[in-house]
Amino acid sequence: MNTRRDFLQKIGASALMLKLGSISAFANVPDQIEQAYEGRVLRVAIMGLGGYGTRVAEAMKACTKAKLVGVISGTPSKIKEWQTKYNIPEKNCYNYDNFDQVKNNPDIDAIYVITPNALHHSQVIRVAKAGKHAICEKPMALNAKEGQEMLDACKKANVKLLVGYRLHFEPRTLEVIRMRNAGDFGKVMFFQGQCGFKIGDPSQWRLNKALAGGGSMMDIGIYAINGARYMVGEEPVWVTAQETKTDPVKFKEGVDETIQFQLGFPSGAVASCLSSYNINYLDRFFMSGDKGYAEMQPSTGYGPIKGRTHNGELTQPTTTHQTIQMDEMATIIFEDKKPVVPVNGEEGLKDLKIIDAIYLAVKTGEKVKLRA
Amino acid sequence: MNTRRDFLQKIGASALMLKLGSISAFANVPDQIEQAYEGRVLRVAIMGLGGYGTRVAEAMKACTKAKLVGVISGTPSKIKEWQTKYNIPEKNCYNYDNFDQVKNNPDIDAIYVITPNALHHSQVIRVAKAGKHAICEKPMALNAKEGQEMLDACKKANVKLLVGYRLHFEPRTLEVIRMRNAGDFGKVMFFQGQCGFKIGDPSQWRLNKALAGGGSMMDIGIYAINGARYMVGEEPVWVTAQETKTDPVKFKEGVDETIQFQLGFPSGAVASCLSSYNINYLDRFFMSGDKGYAEMQPSTGYGPIKGRTHNGELTQPTTTHQTIQMDEMATIIFEDKKPVVPVNGEEGLKDLKIIDAIYLAVKTGEKVKLRA
Repeated sequence: MNTRRDFLQKIGASALMLKLGSISAFANVPDQIEQAYEGRVLRVAIMGLGGYGTRVAEAMKACTKAKLVGVISGTPSKIKEWQTKYNIPEKNCYNYDNFDQVKNNPDIDAIYVITPNALHHSQVIRVAKAGKHAICEKPMALNAKEGQEMLDACKKANVKLLVGYRLHFEPRTLEVIRMRNAGDFGKVMFFQGQCGFKIGDPSQWRLNKALAGGGSMMDIGIYAINGARYMVGEEPVWVTAQETKTDPVKFKEGVDETIQFQLGFPSGAVASCLSSYNINYLDRFFMSGDKGYAEMQPSTGYGPIKGRTHNGELTQPTTTHQTIQMDEMATIIFEDKKPVVPVNGEEGLKDLKIIDAIYLAVKTGEKVKLRA
Repeated sequence: MNTRRDFLQKIGASALMLKLGSISAFANVPDQIEQAYEGRVLRVAIMGLGGYGTRVAEAMKACTKAKLVGVISGTPSKIKEWQTKYNIPEKNCYNYDNFDQVKNNPDIDAIYVITPNALHHSQVIRVAKAGKHAICEKPMALNAKEGQEMLDACKKANVKLLVGYRLHFEPRTLEVIRMRNAGDFGKVMFFQGQCGFKIGDPSQWRLNKALAGGGSMMDIGIYAINGARYMVGEEPVWVTAQETKTDPVKFKEGVDETIQFQLGFPSGAVASCLSSYNINYLDRFFMSGDKGYAEMQPSTGYGPIKGRTHNGELTQPTTTHQTIQMDEMATIIFEDKKPVVPVNGEEGLKDLKIIDAIYLAVKTGEKVKLRA
């Protein structure tokens, strides 16, 4: 490794210098180091080389602070393909049997777990035990109990646990949050999150209870939960929920097709949310305050987030969500940067507690209280 | 009265000729009678000369099939003002004590009841007993029991009972319904109705339980109920609902500030609705089918309804809602025209049954089943 870079990291200078801009903090450091990223680059291995894993890998090509350097997969042919495509050395390739050995690999800093939901819990704990930082795709786990165990394991191993909340770095989303914090919407009264799509291939793991841990709620409904929290800026204190199933063949026992759910916040604001694997043309967040509103549509898709407020269109420049996410995660991991909206395990756990409450509310038909 | 007009009405010719357009169905009827409306003009007295009554009166200036000819009010100065403004003869003016005498007035066909909600029940029954057709502003009554009694009274008196559902005649709304009936949206899966506004003056009758019979639900939430039914094209079989109150001073016991409610339909479609007197920037209907969608925003306001479907913007020409409504109501009353979406008492009663169920669901916290 670059010795000067190691030195700068040790003294925490890189973060400082980024803040200082063109003013050099050290007379003996040449000016040009401020032009390019001189912080420690996050060297990432992706676990799970499916559709979303590929999307992240492609997005990481444009990263300046993070780099794809390794893979973990149960399919040797996929590993070969990725090695060629992303120039990954043999020594950074693992399968699900041997990836604990990554602990002996000094060239991998973090593992991004992008596998079916039910595997996150055990895999993140193994990553932690291997002494690597864990980035875990959402949902972080199947329930709060699992999530807490993952947090505990990462804390014990002294590694970071981050959740792939790409929208927490999305510029137009952040602008709405900035406006809310500045009081531009006045008192926030209402949030609406409509998340869903008509899912295809009935044989996919997302429709398999054992792998997905649920149905639409685990995959797409979680965006409405998470969005409600970051848009309103509060933690809900109650949940009600109603499930509807029209196709019990496609959506088997334990795999939710459509769930409507409502959240109540300490301020009195309420959220009305929809999670569905069988309703098309959804992807809308709406927030209303007594002085203004924000409407984002699409609000969670992979393409540009579009939206407007009472002040007009949101025009912040956007880029590929996963590119910003991975670059920002590098600074969170190495420089302890605090993002505006957290992406740590605690944040993931908050969503899991609400998912637990939603499933309980569906089952009992009753309002479920949450601790604020 | 015009004898030829009476004759045409008797044989139902005017409706027929309107359908035939420029082709004269009768050789002995001059062509020009097809240019202007030749049906019987509905002569209306408005009961309740408040803000909405004034709006209807203004809109009726442009009517060709209905005419404002009388007033009923408890405020003599208002009567004087309206007499001058709308050229209303003294003999067509009544107060709340003497309006039963309208039964002896051959120059009034119908009375449009635009008074506080709690008065509709007794007033419509008095109108029926006076042998006049009743048009009643929504909500038709405070509950289904009252609604049924009004229906029974009008049936017994052999007069029509219509409810002021202006949107049932609104061209863009009707285009969406036409598209749905034509299968353009495919299988309808979801409806969302967000209705509400931050209400002003805390002393108004709408915030008085005794006069309003409730709060936002009676006044604005009913649009979401009614919209859910005409957009989905089915009658709901279950209701769940959650009330939130942040300002118990402004919104006293029995006056709902904000209610979220959900409806389930026999097909499996669901509706997610919001009714509020304390949330701004609402007025949106959204319907999603498996082949297309409709979004209307504003969906219920007095101005032009705006919207789009998967095929693009809705561009049907619009005009003042109440003008079309009153003209259409003339043909419903005198020619027994069947509108695409009913506006009769049975239609009003369906909404009241759902309101009853919503208030029950709020009270019990449980899902309330409805008869399909």
